Amino acid sequence: MGSFKGHALPGTFFIIMGIWWTLKCIVKYVCRKHKRTSYFGSKAVFYRVDIVEGITIIGMAVIGMLGEQFIVGGPHLSLYNYKEGRWVQLLGWHHTTMYFFFGLFGVMNILCSTIRSLPTSLSKLMFSNALFVEAFIFYNHTHGREILDIFVHQLLVMVIFLAGLAAFMEIFLRANLTVELLRTSFILLQGSWFWQIGFVLYPPSGGPAWDLLDHDNIMFLTICFCWHYAFTFIIIGALYAFVIWLVKTRLNRTCPSEVGLLKNVEREQESEEEM
Amino acid sequence: MGSFKGHALPGTFFIIMGIWWTLKCIVKYVCRKHKRTSYFGSKAVFYRVDIVEGITIIGMAVIGMLGEQFIVGGPHLSLYNYKEGRWVQLLGWHHTTMYFFFGLFGVMNILCSTIRSLPTSLSKLMFSNALFVEAFIFYNHTHGREILDIFVHQLLVMVIFLAGLAAFMEIFLRANLTVELLRTSFILLQGSWFWQIGFVLYPPSGGPAWDLLDHDNIMFLTICFCWHYAFTFIIIGALYAFVIWLVKTRLNRTCPSEVGLLKNVEREQESEEEM
Amino acid sequence: MGSFKGHALPGTFFIIMGIWWTLKCIVKYVCRKHKRTSYFGSKAVFYRVDIVEGITIIGMAVIGMLGEQFIVGGPHLSLYNYKEGRWVQLLGWHHTTMYFFFGLFGVMNILCSTIRSLPTSLSKLMFSNALFVEAFIFYNHTHGREILDIFVHQLLVMVIFLAGLAAFMEIFLRANLTVELLRTSFILLQGSWFWQIGFVLYPPSGGPAWDLLDHDNIMFLTICFCWHYAFTFIIIGALYAFVIWLVKTRLNRTCPSEVGLLKNVEREQESEEEM
Amino acid sequence: MGSFKGHALPGTFFIIMGIWWTLKCIVKYVCRKHKRTSYFGSKAVFYRVDIVEGITIIGMAVIGMLGEQFIVGGPHLSLYNYKEGRWVQLLGWHHTTMYFFFGLFGVMNILCSTIRSLPTSLSKLMFSNALFVEAFIFYNHTHGREILDIFVHQLLVMVIFLAGLAAFMEIFLRANLTVELLRTSFILLQGSWFWQIGFVLYPPSGGPAWDLLDHDNIMFLTICFCWHYAFTFIIIGALYAFVIWLVKTRLNRTCPSEVGLLKNVEREQESEEEM
Repeated sequence: MGSFKGHALPGTFFIIMGIWWTLKCIVKYVCRKHKRTSYFGSKAVFYRVDIVEGITIIGMAVIGMLGEQFIVGGPHLSLYNYKEGRWVQLLGWHHTTMYFFFGLFGVMNILCSTIRSLPTSLSKLMFSNALFVEAFIFYNHTHGREILDIFVHQLLVMVIFLAGLAAFMEIFLRANLTVELLRTSFILLQGSWFWQIGFVLYPPSGGPAWDLLDHDNIMFLTICFCWHYAFTFIIIGALYAFVIWLVKTRLNRTCPSEVGLLKNVEREQESEEEM
Repeated sequence: MGSFKGHALPGTFFIIMGIWWTLKCIVKYVCRKHKRTSYFGSKAVFYRVDIVEGITIIGMAVIGMLGEQFIVGGPHLSLYNYKEGRWVQLLGWHHTTMYFFFGLFGVMNILCSTIRSLPTSLSKLMFSNALFVEAFIFYNHTHGREILDIFVHQLLVMVIFLAGLAAFMEIFLRANLTVELLRTSFILLQGSWFWQIGFVLYPPSGGPAWDLLDHDNIMFLTICFCWHYAFTFIIIGALYAFVIWLVKTRLNRTCPSEVGLLKNVEREQESEEEM
Repeated sequence: MGSFKGHALPGTFFIIMGIWWTLKCIVKYVCRKHKRTSYFGSKAVFYRVDIVEGITIIGMAVIGMLGEQFIVGGPHLSLYNYKEGRWVQLLGWHHTTMYFFFGLFGVMNILCSTIRSLPTSLSKLMFSNALFVEAFIFYNHTHGREILDIFVHQLLVMVIFLAGLAAFMEIFLRANLTVELLRTSFILLQGSWFWQIGFVLYPPSGGPAWDLLDHDNIMFLTICFCWHYAFTFIIIGALYAFVIWLVKTRLNRTCPSEVGLLKNVEREQESEEEM
Repeated sequence: MGSFKGHALPGTFFIIMGIWWTLKCIVKYVCRKHKRTSYFGSKAVFYRVDIVEGITIIGMAVIGMLGEQFIVGGPHLSLYNYKEGRWVQLLGWHHTTMYFFFGLFGVMNILCSTIRSLPTSLSKLMFSNALFVEAFIFYNHTHGREILDIFVHQLLVMVIFLAGLAAFMEIFLRANLTVELLRTSFILLQGSWFWQIGFVLYPPSGGPAWDLLDHDNIMFLTICFCWHYAFTFIIIGALYAFVIWLVKTRLNRTCPSEVGLLKNVEREQESEEEM
């Protein structure tokens, strides 16, 4: 993982998952608003989507674990070198452990979608656990490095921890769009920050690396982190607008009048509720 | 911003906004109590007020961003000086970033008031995000300064963070006067503490600055911070009394008997509820 | 306050208040259980009790403030000695500020009991604010002292902060016996820990003070703190048994059969609810 | 306690209790789902189980306290050696205090099951208190030891604190399977981590102890902690499958059709609720 690609790959994965989860929770929200789940198919569709999602996550996790173990110079499943009396490639094992917990999340996702007696919040619990474990491992990951390296990883730990907290809150606050978007915003931020770490520590241009001891770089990365976060919200806003536009276009074509009526009633009920 | 005026301006802004939000949430509370929104106009009035508020905040944020960028000695939108190989005016960029997030909050405020399908809690989320980002940037702002300078900024970070937490709690606890007043009290405290920082670091009298290494000054500013907080509550109490007096005077003139009856019923229901 | 009496006095105050609040919340709980508020008088009784409580707290706060200011060697309301260019008796001002916030709580207690349009949670808010301010000031109080002195004050800060958190939780969880008892247990612990600090730092026997640099003393005070906490729960248990015994004796004398019936019904409903 | 057995014993205790609580909360969950408490006997069964549980915990706590006090080299109830002017065996007293709080929890468990006027959340409160006190004492336990020793105890403190938090959350969130399983997972993790500490600090094989200054060992124990946590979830999953299999086998034999119908209705209601 100590390369630009090693940071770009998980970054891309989290950005894709973030966009996917953002779309899913906006679509679910719109369905709840319109109380027209029949239009988007029955709830079974969502369960099937969750199963596909779970399989994808398990696949990614297995690929990640195998990749970490069997790349050139990887630990190849050996943990302790008895000859030399030292641990083998512990950083690789760290990453393997992270992937394993995401794999557990994928398994739980499938179980919660197939076995109905399991509460769905268990899948949320495993998700927040996977994120907390990731934050915990990254927290103990950068021992003895330069301050800028530690700083960018601390920010990463912070955003992962916050994503875990948001996922944990969803155990109790089901179907709350605000918390769901907060969680996906942290997932997106995590993805784009992985890219940023790659650019800072292993510049792909082949140019000289950043000065890891310069405090001005820390000052800049502080605001750079905020810009990534602002960008995250712009992406979410664009996705929201896209979903709403899609729904409106297709719904208006099929049943324009009914929707209009529904929305007026809802509007009043909602404004009643909001006061 | 490294001047008395640079601290007095945002201080004044937060005090005005704090007073405004205090008035708004007390008026809303009184409306809920009297269930007489028709008297104060329909809910549309509150939405229109939110739009005006959003436009004001965007205006302030844009002015702040332009001011930070184009004052004499500002960065003028250049981020990196390639000739000298160093960042340009990072503190100015820090402030610009803070203003930008408040601008995002203003935009979301307008969107949540115009597009009814958006949940209003999204506007609360952007508000708490703006405050958390402000706290995060101020936390990484005072690198390598004197202890008193760091201490007053730490207190600032604390109060901004608490304001963010209170705003975050409002996502789940709608229409709870206590939490709303807690949030506005922190906003007011933030405003008056900006003034205090101005007085400590850049005395406007032209006299000598405070001794930034004296521990007695820290001990004094600890209680000074508490006095500001006590003062905040006195202002809120005065505003509350003023709104109640205003409502009573005007309501009694138009429909004294009806109100009296309503209040007695409410009083009993409430006391029932409180036990 | 730098004496045994200076710690024993607030300790006694908090122990008395803790016992009082414990009794009050147990009595309220029993009233709610029996739905027989008429027996203990109308709710007006509780409001009157709150007013008396508020007046007592204000009285204590004013006595504390005057005592801190006008004892021999106190600051006598002067804050800054312009001749010598230094602050006057800042520790005394620290204590004055703490008392002032408890005074504010007393005022709010009276206001919330007399003006019914105010939500009672505002009084809880001022209570938790008074405790948080006390914790904040004590946190910045022990600059440059010995480790044992700092340690006992850190434990004090911790228990005050936890009491503040419990009081803050009561804003949202009204009439929850468990949280109320948690809060009163922290208040009692705070009181008895004030006594312990007095014994450690200013032994009343006139013997030599404890060795403030000995780590074994820290190890002992760690468990001593836990014993105080265990003792707190034993006191609360005794008070609970006393109130229940009192209620049973007096209720059985007046209307034994009715109560028995009521309790059976309740018992089943409750056990239904608990599963 | 400074031996392998001294860590293996509490470890075994927590693992057994963790498995027991996991089974109990899964059975309770299945009962709630099937609304067939009559099958598993009346609620009185659960109260009787709680009483037996309380007696067991009190027994364990008393044995632990006596063991700590009267083992060879223990303090034998003497706290201060006046001759030599030093505390006697403070670490032994630390453990005695921890056991005492678990004893208090056992007492409260019995009281809450026998005296119905007590809210059951009080027993949860005492449980979280016992865990918080344990975390607090362990936090102040490892003064002046090697970094690896401190690190493994820090992880122990973390998991105990998280178990306390989960138990505290149960005060407000009754009958929530996810939070209950989270708590039992932390209890199981605590138990297995006690074993791990024993293996690290006092290798039972008689071989040389681990290098307490090697940073690679810290890196390894970080992921080892995560593996223990993953293992915990696998145990819980197996217990869940076992209970479900047991219930299905026995229910199907007695009343297959009725159960099937019940489950279909539930399934739909639940899926309705989940959206």
